[in-house]
Amino acid sequence: MEDFIIDRVDNITLLPPRSGPADTVAGLLSEISRIGTDQQHGGYWRPVFSTAEFDLRAWFLAHAAKRGLDVTTDRNGVIWAWWHTPDGRTGNAVVTGSHLDSVPGGGAFDGPLGVASALVAVDILRADGVRPERPLVIAVFPEEEGSRFGVACLGTRLLTGAIDVDRARTLRDRNGDTFAEVAARSGIDPSRLGPDPQMLAQIGTFIELHVEQGRDLIDRKQPVGIGSSILGHGRWRLSVTGQGNHAGTTLMTDRRDPMIAAAGIVMDIRDTARAHPGARATVGRLEPVPGGTNVIASRVDLWLDARHPDDEVTASVVTTILAHARRISAAEGCTVELTEESVSRTVDFDGALRDRLSLLLPDAPVQHTGAGHDAGILARFVPTAMLFVRNPTGVSHSPEEYVDDNDAEAGARALARVLADLLVRAG
Amino acid sequence: MEDFIIDRVDNITLLPPRSGPADTVAGLLSEISRIGTDQQHGGYWRPVFSTAEFDLRAWFLAHAAKRGLDVTTDRNGVIWAWWHTPDGRTGNAVVTGSHLDSVPGGGAFDGPLGVASALVAVDILRADGVRPERPLVIAVFPEEEGSRFGVACLGTRLLTGAIDVDRARTLRDRNGDTFAEVAARSGIDPSRLGPDPQMLAQIGTFIELHVEQGRDLIDRKQPVGIGSSILGHGRWRLSVTGQGNHAGTTLMTDRRDPMIAAAGIVMDIRDTARAHPGARATVGRLEPVPGGTNVIASRVDLWLDARHPDDEVTASVVTTILAHARRISAAEGCTVELTEESVSRTVDFDGALRDRLSLLLPDAPVQHTGAGHDAGILARFVPTAMLFVRNPTGVSHSPEEYVDDNDAEAGARALARVLADLLVRAG
Repeated sequence: MEDFIIDRVDNITLLPPRSGPADTVAGLLSEISRIGTDQQHGGYWRPVFSTAEFDLRAWFLAHAAKRGLDVTTDRNGVIWAWWHTPDGRTGNAVVTGSHLDSVPGGGAFDGPLGVASALVAVDILRADGVRPERPLVIAVFPEEEGSRFGVACLGTRLLTGAIDVDRARTLRDRNGDTFAEVAARSGIDPSRLGPDPQMLAQIGTFIELHVEQGRDLIDRKQPVGIGSSILGHGRWRLSVTGQGNHAGTTLMTDRRDPMIAAAGIVMDIRDTARAHPGARATVGRLEPVPGGTNVIASRVDLWLDARHPDDEVTASVVTTILAHARRISAAEGCTVELTEESVSRTVDFDGALRDRLSLLLPDAPVQHTGAGHDAGILARFVPTAMLFVRNPTGVSHSPEEYVDDNDAEAGARALARVLADLLVRAG
Repeated sequence: MEDFIIDRVDNITLLPPRSGPADTVAGLLSEISRIGTDQQHGGYWRPVFSTAEFDLRAWFLAHAAKRGLDVTTDRNGVIWAWWHTPDGRTGNAVVTGSHLDSVPGGGAFDGPLGVASALVAVDILRADGVRPERPLVIAVFPEEEGSRFGVACLGTRLLTGAIDVDRARTLRDRNGDTFAEVAARSGIDPSRLGPDPQMLAQIGTFIELHVEQGRDLIDRKQPVGIGSSILGHGRWRLSVTGQGNHAGTTLMTDRRDPMIAAAGIVMDIRDTARAHPGARATVGRLEPVPGGTNVIASRVDLWLDARHPDDEVTASVVTTILAHARRISAAEGCTVELTEESVSRTVDFDGALRDRLSLLLPDAPVQHTGAGHDAGILARFVPTAMLFVRNPTGVSHSPEEYVDDNDAEAGARALARVLADLLVRAG
């Protein structure tokens, strides 16, 4: 499992070990508040395998070392920090953690909150004298957002075999570099990417703590919630091809402008989503090619994010959008192609585990979420649960995303309570 | 006038000097056919002050040196290559030339054709034994396309004072670098940018040869045309601001999505242009911020290119578009701001000069063009004319742009004929 250890520790100022006051979630996050700030969009941009994400990995490794955790980074770039049982038993591990990468213009909590809370939860368990009967592992998964290579939860998809490894290797970032090329530059052997059944078999339970991406906990006046399901969702690329030409010399009537068709498709996507109650469909990324001000585009690529609790409705939404897109494009003398980039079916988390968490956290409401998570991938393989922490703005994937310090500590305590129960009772 | 000489000559293979066969336009262009190719969009991307554009400058400098021309690069980054009169008279110079920068995904001829034709025209004049009574100068202007810093014809605007120099210094490229910063890295002193009345006073006549950006010469079955006017045109940036949020967790009804408003504006721009006969309006560049697939954009910037022979109609088109954009944005809970990036009024070239060219080139039709050129800026200060060379695809700002070898030579011969007449008759 162990392939390499990233040992960069520049830019990190750790709080004093042991002798000083205990780490808080807010304190841990303040240590990384200057890493990967996004000057262009505000907030943070921490793409996987960027300098910023490596600095965050180094910060995590330093904190894992401070706690005496046994750290490996596996052949897919997942970090695993082990707190072994006193008698060295393996298997049936309780895994918790999240990710450190962010979307462009993202907030400070989506990902790092789950990692920092896991570190603090370990401190709480130790302060409480918990002696684990199962190993506890903190995991950090790469490319959860899919904001660099276009496939969300790429780390857990590779780990579990939920993505074809040849396809993963050839995914390209916006610079045109493949995942294999970037991985190789990051110390990962691209030939060894892919399913890791031995590691997967070690995991008995997975718990992911995450900032809430909605307003439910605000309305319910609760700091922490328990996840019940993740809406099915996916990403599709629509490429509209027309005729590139000069913006000044080409008469309006002589044009086959894919930007016009793309605009019609964007409007139709919203209308189609509205016609399917509970559906969400979004175009957040759109790229005209070549993208010059005085150039009629030859092609426009746009990305559709579509979600619905019922996977058949999601499929129907996409089918409808494609049919409409073809008609809209044809009317402009353009053509359109649809490419599925990633699809996740609706995931219901393990019912027994969810009920166990509800007993432990009786005030925490049970919620479903529209956002994808690594927990959604792992839930197909191991009993999985999620905890959500209140976001007072209700806004996410934005610099406005926020978690109050008290809520962050409440989240870490809730996580510690759940972990303690899992570690010392029969799993 | 002389500030620095760029002397990079990497990547250039010159044809053998003197002893070999004469340079042809096609031969000259073949020497630079591998410089600045655009792997992403096809064709070429040669932004001003990029490695590619510097390589093209080096190629030009080498050819100017081969012809014994006296070269200076002025404080605005314009290259001037002088063929002095035998008796060293100055002033009243005949200037010809064009630009070497291209749009992204541009063709091989837009710009370089005028430069290569000027070099061949000098060869023809010398082979014909012409002894100039006025200096002949080949000029290469930077950032004609405005594809890096957003203002077309930036070199001639600086030279003539048609742009405020403080504004020019703070123009930013897509990396966020200012024109001043990039100029400084390119060996240009940003504090010395700006109007150059002494150089401008040297110019008696300006002739720009350019690939046709339309189908007129195809229809007329002529290789060469004479320009009569340039349509007024301008660029405006529309910034639509809404509320960034998570694409999965935000209900369709809770959104203030600027992408929806932007799509409505794109459609309206086309409709508004169609409602004004003769108008052209284009959105070729559109950038959602932050641009993540699973992120509702917080802002969308889109660029409007609008043109009409009557400047008042252009102004009316833009006013109408802004009024509609406000209404469309408000309906989505968004706001919109319009920023004028550059505006050029309709330019009628010097009538006497145009008639003189028509006498010299009796088969060449007189044409107007929808494309902006440095000739359009200089025409306000000195008698100016343009020659156009047939483009058999009619497509421009695209890899499909093309000029047949025979037409290219016909263009250079036409240019030489015009230059000979200007050089030896009273200007």
